[in-house]
Amino acid sequence: MFDSLTYQNRRKALREKVGHGIILILGNNEAPANYPDNTYKFRQDSSFVYFFGHSHPGFAGVIDADSHEECLFGDDVDMDDIIWMGPQSSVKELAAQVGVAKSCPFAKLKEVIGKAISQRRKIHFLPPYRYDNMLLVEDLTGIRASMTPKHASLELIKAVVDLRSVKEPCEIAEIDRACNVGYEMHTAAMRLCKPGVSEQYIAGVLDGIAASYGRMVSFATILTQNGQTLHNHDHSHTLQEGRLMLTDAGAELMNYYCSDHTRTVPVGGRFTSRQRDVYSIVLACHDKALELARPGVTYMSVHLDVCKVLAQGLKDLGLMKGDVEEAVAAGAHALFLPHGLGHMMGLDVHDMEDLGQCHVGYDDEVRPSTQFGLASLRMGRRLKEGFVITDEPGCYFIPALIDKWRAEGTNASFLNFDAIDKFKDFGGIRLEDDILITADGSRFTGEKRIPITIDEVEDIMNR
Amino acid sequence: MFDSLTYQNRRKALREKVGHGIILILGNNEAPANYPDNTYKFRQDSSFVYFFGHSHPGFAGVIDADSHEECLFGDDVDMDDIIWMGPQSSVKELAAQVGVAKSCPFAKLKEVIGKAISQRRKIHFLPPYRYDNMLLVEDLTGIRASMTPKHASLELIKAVVDLRSVKEPCEIAEIDRACNVGYEMHTAAMRLCKPGVSEQYIAGVLDGIAASYGRMVSFATILTQNGQTLHNHDHSHTLQEGRLMLTDAGAELMNYYCSDHTRTVPVGGRFTSRQRDVYSIVLACHDKALELARPGVTYMSVHLDVCKVLAQGLKDLGLMKGDVEEAVAAGAHALFLPHGLGHMMGLDVHDMEDLGQCHVGYDDEVRPSTQFGLASLRMGRRLKEGFVITDEPGCYFIPALIDKWRAEGTNASFLNFDAIDKFKDFGGIRLEDDILITADGSRFTGEKRIPITIDEVEDIMNR
Repeated sequence: MFDSLTYQNRRKALREKVGHGIILILGNNEAPANYPDNTYKFRQDSSFVYFFGHSHPGFAGVIDADSHEECLFGDDVDMDDIIWMGPQSSVKELAAQVGVAKSCPFAKLKEVIGKAISQRRKIHFLPPYRYDNMLLVEDLTGIRASMTPKHASLELIKAVVDLRSVKEPCEIAEIDRACNVGYEMHTAAMRLCKPGVSEQYIAGVLDGIAASYGRMVSFATILTQNGQTLHNHDHSHTLQEGRLMLTDAGAELMNYYCSDHTRTVPVGGRFTSRQRDVYSIVLACHDKALELARPGVTYMSVHLDVCKVLAQGLKDLGLMKGDVEEAVAAGAHALFLPHGLGHMMGLDVHDMEDLGQCHVGYDDEVRPSTQFGLASLRMGRRLKEGFVITDEPGCYFIPALIDKWRAEGTNASFLNFDAIDKFKDFGGIRLEDDILITADGSRFTGEKRIPITIDEVEDIMNR
Repeated sequence: MFDSLTYQNRRKALREKVGHGIILILGNNEAPANYPDNTYKFRQDSSFVYFFGHSHPGFAGVIDADSHEECLFGDDVDMDDIIWMGPQSSVKELAAQVGVAKSCPFAKLKEVIGKAISQRRKIHFLPPYRYDNMLLVEDLTGIRASMTPKHASLELIKAVVDLRSVKEPCEIAEIDRACNVGYEMHTAAMRLCKPGVSEQYIAGVLDGIAASYGRMVSFATILTQNGQTLHNHDHSHTLQEGRLMLTDAGAELMNYYCSDHTRTVPVGGRFTSRQRDVYSIVLACHDKALELARPGVTYMSVHLDVCKVLAQGLKDLGLMKGDVEEAVAAGAHALFLPHGLGHMMGLDVHDMEDLGQCHVGYDDEVRPSTQFGLASLRMGRRLKEGFVITDEPGCYFIPALIDKWRAEGTNASFLNFDAIDKFKDFGGIRLEDDILITADGSRFTGEKRIPITIDEVEDIMNR
């Protein structure tokens, strides 16, 4: 936790931005895995953590934007809880730690919200993404559970996004720490990447490192020799010589700040000539984004410039053809890169994704695209100092998509399908770092950069 | 997965037991951690796995107990899914793999259930424990989400408990495999247990081993030098010389079969004389349970006999006094052992706990107690060949509980509070193995027994 003033300042800024009404920030509860009492590792709601600091299940915070009164709702423990869970701080003590003057039993929340509704005051809540909280909001407001995300407060969403988008120095320090854990995870994966080792074994080691130094992985690890599948959570294969292992993995610290990196390395430790060719293109894309990312430019424009580097590289390899600008405008490169260049990162690995990607990554100026590929860009808007975003270009050979486009003739004037067909056994490459937008450019987060050049990767794998 | 016939036989037995109506077995969905698309590791519902074998989110199985028609409900993937998640088997193929003739899109489920309701047929469903499934049952049946667990079918619950309680040979083999992973976890913990090492570091290593060789831990690991807290998930301490580290941890294989073991070892590798005294009592309790557990005896009686061993041992140490039988009848020993001797284990670490402990661990003959301590016994009923249960006595010195009983004079005639007070800094000891009830007794599950005698523990820790 940060100091009490950090949370007080954030809540003050929030209520000033929202202006009027009752701001309700729901914490998360324990999440059952296979029966009510066998729960996953507790994961607090990120906005609750941001404004109320605590990582305990069963809490909610209320800020009255008119009276400025704040209250933490939660239940104190009894003797049974002490026997099973140990001594715990009182809700009153927890509230005081983050500068909240008032605390109440959780059941009192219904009365407070009910009273405000009867006074026709606006209840601002964020879109619930857990079903228990949807049911809670139904109980508090009468809005049907399944409809509660649609009734979330746009003013509150925009205010939260405004605040959480620009990382404070204390937050940047935590993201740097999370990236250091990411370094340990990825270098361990590189060292273990040998023919005959199972994907599952290495993914398990990464789970372990994340849990030993933080809370858990910041998202389900992608670790696969089938890197052409973008979010491949299948770890059932045994690594084979000649394949590429793509590892997209990050850590989440005890205070929830994240890391998110991707590396793609040759099983056995030496890139083939064909792998070097494609790898070099993706690395050039990655460097291009880093070169361009700075306050004032839109990430949409960075994404498109990166796509041009990709298309030029693939044209040089004989896989694409025609005018590069036109190819990218038509979305032809999306056969190889059907996802976006990156997303915000912070307390969530896709920061604030629960609040709606259109509010986080876009604004009135930069609107989301509907074009295949570009539509998957999570972050398009103009960059500001203090943003933390990912830079993660890739190049994939997805047999089913290649066959579909070929059959349909999609973007056929920019694609050499006969040459592309020969890459159907290639897999995919993605390279990802987390970058902080600084006053005049950007920098990597974390103390050391995870090996990324061909030489660096081959060196650590053969040491 | 087991062979198709295993699932066909189980479903046939289930519909014969239930007799009439529609049996609805809901699979689980992905569970959001901090936003809809950032989900925990997928955990299928155990009963769904038992009857329908598959471990994919978004499925439901229906068995018509009258017509014997069976159907698997789920949605086939589209091109977008293939790009992000890779090629997947069709629902029809998945159904065929477990001998289910019919498959339908998930949305069709509402129509099928709606039609059955309109025909006034009974819809048998198990108590939902995830809120999304409560909302689904609300949508299917009109029963309010929060009330759906109370409307679960008792006939179905009893039929499922009957079947799942007695483990088939193929299941026992999997439990043995899970226990082998448990062996790796616990012996790793013993080797790492040194002064200055953090609890979190070791707990993380255990997470890693469970994930490398299985799916994940079978429950949130308890690993603490504050073993007096029964379910202590706090790993924030650095191990100190002279303390005991209690590790209660297990693995869950990819097919969900579990292990659950507890060991308590001295930080630094040598038990003190006082630790040896208490440890020897708990080990004697553990051995007593193993000696008594066999088909035909109630686990309640085994629990009570074990409590007598504990009370006698504590009397010999000068912590208890008076008649041992009377002390146990009064529940005086529960100051030191406020939990039960064990629970069933299988596809869930507390097997079938979602179906209600009163149906799983108790029956018409053996009823749950309301006495403090004994009320926490999860398994009281008569043992049968093929049951897998845990044997997990403990002895804890819980300062808050000691102070409370002393102040109230609870069971004062059996307790030497002055002597007990000197143990308030002791912590707690628990020793747990998983045992299979055989034709004429019981055996440990797993290939090798995790070191448990004082000599075995000190040996592995100092090797």
